[in-house]
Formats: sequence, C-alpha cells, structure tokens
Amino acid sequence: MKKAPISSSNGHETAASPTLEDVARTAGVSTATVSRCLNNPSVVSDKTRKRVLDAVKSLGYAPNFGAQALAAKRTRTFGAIVPTMENAIFARGLQAFQEELQRCGITLLVSSSSYSPELEEEQIRGLVARGADALLLIGFDRSPQIYEFLEKQQVPYVIAWVYDPDQPMLSIGFDNRRAMQSLVTQVLELGHRSVALITAERNGNDRAQQRYEGLLNAMKAHGLDPKTLHVIETTYSITNGAEALKTLMQSDQKPTAVICGNDVLAAGAMVQARKMGLKVPDDLSITGFDDIEIAEIVTPTLTTVHVPHRKMGKGAAQMLVALRNGQNPDQSIELEAVTILRESLGPVPKSET
Amino acid sequence: MKKAPISSSNGHETAASPTLEDVARTAGVSTATVSRCLNNPSVVSDKTRKRVLDAVKSLGYAPNFGAQALAAKRTRTFGAIVPTMENAIFARGLQAFQEELQRCGITLLVSSSSYSPELEEEQIRGLVARGADALLLIGFDRSPQIYEFLEKQQVPYVIAWVYDPDQPMLSIGFDNRRAMQSLVTQVLELGHRSVALITAERNGNDRAQQRYEGLLNAMKAHGLDPKTLHVIETTYSITNGAEALKTLMQSDQKPTAVICGNDVLAAGAMVQARKMGLKVPDDLSITGFDDIEIAEIVTPTLTTVHVPHRKMGKGAAQMLVALRNGQNPDQSIELEAVTILRESLGPVPKSET
Repeated sequence: MKKAPISSSNGHETAASPTLEDVARTAGVSTATVSRCLNNPSVVSDKTRKRVLDAVKSLGYAPNFGAQALAAKRTRTFGAIVPTMENAIFARGLQAFQEELQRCGITLLVSSSSYSPELEEEQIRGLVARGADALLLIGFDRSPQIYEFLEKQQVPYVIAWVYDPDQPMLSIGFDNRRAMQSLVTQVLELGHRSVALITAERNGNDRAQQRYEGLLNAMKAHGLDPKTLHVIETTYSITNGAEALKTLMQSDQKPTAVICGNDVLAAGAMVQARKMGLKVPDDLSITGFDDIEIAEIVTPTLTTVHVPHRKMGKGAAQMLVALRNGQNPDQSIELEAVTILRESLGPVPKSET
Repeated sequence: MKKAPISSSNGHETAASPTLEDVARTAGVSTATVSRCLNNPSVVSDKTRKRVLDAVKSLGYAPNFGAQALAAKRTRTFGAIVPTMENAIFARGLQAFQEELQRCGITLLVSSSSYSPELEEEQIRGLVARGADALLLIGFDRSPQIYEFLEKQQVPYVIAWVYDPDQPMLSIGFDNRRAMQSLVTQVLELGHRSVALITAERNGNDRAQQRYEGLLNAMKAHGLDPKTLHVIETTYSITNGAEALKTLMQSDQKPTAVICGNDVLAAGAMVQARKMGLKVPDDLSITGFDDIEIAEIVTPTLTTVHVPHRKMGKGAAQMLVALRNGQNPDQSIELEAVTILRESLGPVPKSET
C-alpha cells in the first residue's frame, strides 16, 4: 500500500489529490467561497457551507493546512506533551484542556514522552515542524536549548502542573512543595515519627522533586532528622507501589506512615498492605497525591492532595489561546492544591508511641 | 506573541527560519550530509552526527518534514484517534502501541474524539492533512465517506478493540459479543435470573452494542426473556456508574446481578453499593469489562473480561508499520478476551431463589 504524495504548500496539488478547484466545481461555487468556508465558515450561509462540505467529503479533499497556515499564520492545531498516557494522572486535565480548545475550534494533538527528556525534545520539535500553533508542556525541567528553540520559532507555550513565580516561563499549576508539606504536617501531627516515601524518579521530574522537598520541610519543622527518611524511587504503577511497600515493611525500621508521590503508587501500596494482613490505618497510614478517581475507590478511601485537574486544563487552554491571539497574559496562575482527609490516614499505632 | 511563518515545502524557507544550508554551514559539512543525518542517521559517523545535531539545536532549526515527506513519501508520524483519554480504557493499549512505534523510530500523535463521530472525522482529516503516515482507529462504526477518504488518500489504517472477519477493514481485536456472552453465561449459571446492564451509549459504539448483544444471546440460551433486561445507558465514568446503580436498586424489579459495560462503570456501581449498605457479592453481584487496574483495586475485587490491551496495542503497531512499508498483512488478528473470575460475582442470594 503506497501513500499519495502530500500536497505541497505552494498551491499546486499532485494529480492524485482533488484540488480546491475540484471542490469549487463540484459545489458550483467560486474557489474564494470554498476558501471562506474552510477558514471562516461563519460568514458563509448554511446552505452554501453544506454544499461545499458535501463536495469536500465526496471528493475526499484534504484542506492543505500548510498553505492555509502560511496565509493565516496559524493551523488551529495545538500540541500537548505529557509524560505518560498510561495512568490517569494527566488524563482529566488533558480532557478539560481539549474541551476548552474544542470550544475555540482548535484541534489537539497529544504526544507522550514516557518521562524521557530526549523523547520529549524530539516531540516538541516534531509538533512545531507540523505547524502546532502553541504547546502545553508539563513541568519546568528541560534543557535550555529547547526553550531557546521555542523562542526562536515563536511558538507560545504554557507550563502546567507546577507553579513557581521565580521561573520566567508562563505557568499554571500549584506549589508542589507546599502542598506536600501541608499533607505531611498533618501526618506528623497525628504522632507519626517513622515515615517513608515512595516516589517517582526525581531527576528530571520537578513535581516529584518538589514533593520530596516539601516532605523534608515538614520533617524539619517537627524536629525530625531528614536522614531517617526511607525513600524508594520507582516508576508510577500499581505494581511498583505494591513492590515498594513490601520492601519498606521488610526493612529494619518499618514506617508507621507511607507517603506516596501519587495516588497510583498509594493504591498499589494499599493492595499490598491488605495482602500482608496490615490494617490501614490501624497498623499503617498511607497517603497519595493527585486525588484521581481511584482515591475514592480504594478501601479504605485514600487521604491525598486534591489537584485541580479540570481547572488547570481549562485555564491552560485559555492562556494558550490568548497567547496565540497575540494577547499577553500578565502572569502565571497559582491554583490551590489542598489535602483531602479520608480513611487511610490515622493516628500512629499505640504500640509505636 | 506572533508566530513565524511556517516553512513552505517547496524548498524555500522564510527569512525568519534557519535553513538546511545554515545548519550545513554551522556544522561545516555539506547539505547532503545534514540531510543524511536527519533522514538516515545510521549511515553517518557519530562524530559528524553530533556536529550536525549540535548545529540543529543551536540554530533552532526545525526540519521541514513537509519537504522530507515529499521526498521520502513518509513523515514517520502515525496518528491514533481514541474515543477518550479520560478513563484508563485505552491508555494501556495506546502506551504499548506507542512503545512499539518508538522502537521503529516513529512518532505518535494522539487525538481524542470524545465519542463524537463528527469530531473523529475532523481529526482523521486533520491528521491526514498534517501528513500522518498511517492511522489507528477504534471500532468499525464510522461513515462510509471517511473510509473512502482514507482509501483515496492512500493512508493505511488498522481498526482495534474489535474483531469481525466479515468486515473488509484490517482489524486487531477480540469478539466483544462472544466475550460478553461467555461472562454472562457464568453469571446465569450461578442462578441469577434478574439481570441489569449499565452500558455506554450503544449508538455509534460497536463495542458497546456487541457486548449488549452478547448479553442477550446468553439470556436467550438460558430461556430468559430479553425484554426483562433493565438497560441503563450513560457515559463511562465512576460517578455515572454509581448513579445508574442507584436507579436500578430503586426500581421495582431489583437485579441480583448488574453487568457493566466496562470496569469504570462497575467501580462506580461498587462504590454506590457500599454506600447503600449492599454487600457484594452476597446481596448483589457486579461485573465489569476490560480488566484495567481498578479491577484489582476495588474491594471486593472485580470479576471482569480481560482485554489483552498491551498485545493489541503492540500488534496494531506492527500491522501498521508493515502496511506502511508496503507489505500487506494477510488478515485481521483475533485475540482472546477471557473472563477473569474474582470476588464480585457470587451465587444468587438465597432470598431470591
């Protein structure tokens, strides 16, 4: 099976592909009308628009977005690159992002970088090369070269899932450090002194690194030595969360509270605790981060940090659309991420006090 | 913020963008070497490749994929359109699909159609217009025009999540009808006679429609009148699953077994059952479909149909790569989707027998 050559953007089409002229002839209108229909449909009557779109469909005409973009300097396509599509972490925010773009008539193309900086860089270059008007990126951590590339190409971007007023890039998100510090403070106030952390690899993941720092801050504020913190780094998955809990509970210094970098790891830890005959929270407290749907599905329900996924996704879309329209949003937007107390967090077991 | 005009694909670049020549000059190599580096890096020495890539990065050069595609008749970008990114239903399969493409040096761009046929059609045309080499689509249900469009544009595609030897399109998936029939047969063999279904809207969703038909087949085989089946259609979400169960349990004819069209609805139903003080499976059996991670996280664990997500995603990638390379895979691939018996399915309550 061979593919027809792609239409070139100098206005000439290959013989295999129907042209704008073919559409105009079939619809019985001028090429200017076809063009208006595709680029600015609101100025064309419903009847004409229907005739043109019928012709577009029957001929299998693919509008030459390259040429359109040259004319209009925009393709009405935005890109988003998320670290993973496998867990639900980014799903809800992305869905809200897409819904808002859709309302503005913008198509979203998504790539997943599998937490690889090299792959993310390739994908950024690829999306720009395909004419993405604007990009949504997760977290600040990436090479200066790629930021310079985006500036040179004049492609607007917004960073989500993080907020840091000291960063020059426009962002919408929350203070990962403060959110985790607040959660852990509540854990420590319940008497827990032996605490462990199951986290994603922190290198190249500023959300994970900041959550870790927030935990340390809370420990220090309670006079605990950060060196006593048992940290396990693993990739986000139920299985890995379970595996990490097993390791922790087989170690010399068993924790009474296990802080997890996200809800997926926490759900895995809870499944494993049950398997080991540990009662949550009577024997062991477990906390998550994100407040995705599994947080309320697990038994007992999960104490976690509520991330405003939908608000963040929608807000990111609005910022990007504004940027793309030549407006300059004043500043980054900080959203609240608050602790949600549910059943999985309880006082330190009496035997440990 | 304005965007630089996109490079046209006739070989001329706008003044704002660095050209292939600029890269060659900066790297101190010929333009042919730059071109080889970008298109066929394995034939270039590591040292030269590094020099060229350094120049690409420092200049912020975006390879003109349009022109490359015209030359090579391929862009090394595949597209996938899934009905939703919000639930985990498609996430794992998509991840496996992407991992396999990555191994072949192909970038994946994903769109989500929000279960809207109109939006899916726009996205198919959009991805083709942006030069997607090949497409992964979910389910057979779409207008004949869009299939004709893909044929005319000679863009190979594979349909996943369904298998039907009577369909002319190449597919990789499983028999949704038979998988559901097999699950429901096991439910009925446990004595259940009052059965209800919580499903996605079946119109335009052949997976949901076929699962429904499979359920009816099982009922008929057990001498049950399909008219007694209480069906609730809703969109896939935990909240909607919970809401639907509430409605079912407040109806005149309470079911003893609730069959859910997927695990997300089933998880919602289980949360609601707990809230209503119903014991699963003593008072009520609940089943899912998909075997995504939440199936093992809920308490009790969920009886469901295991969909071979990773196998399907990887297989779809292999089929598409073969098609794109001009090979013609003989036939569609059928995978097994088997019932996984867990705790949420039990015998009909004694009071009902």
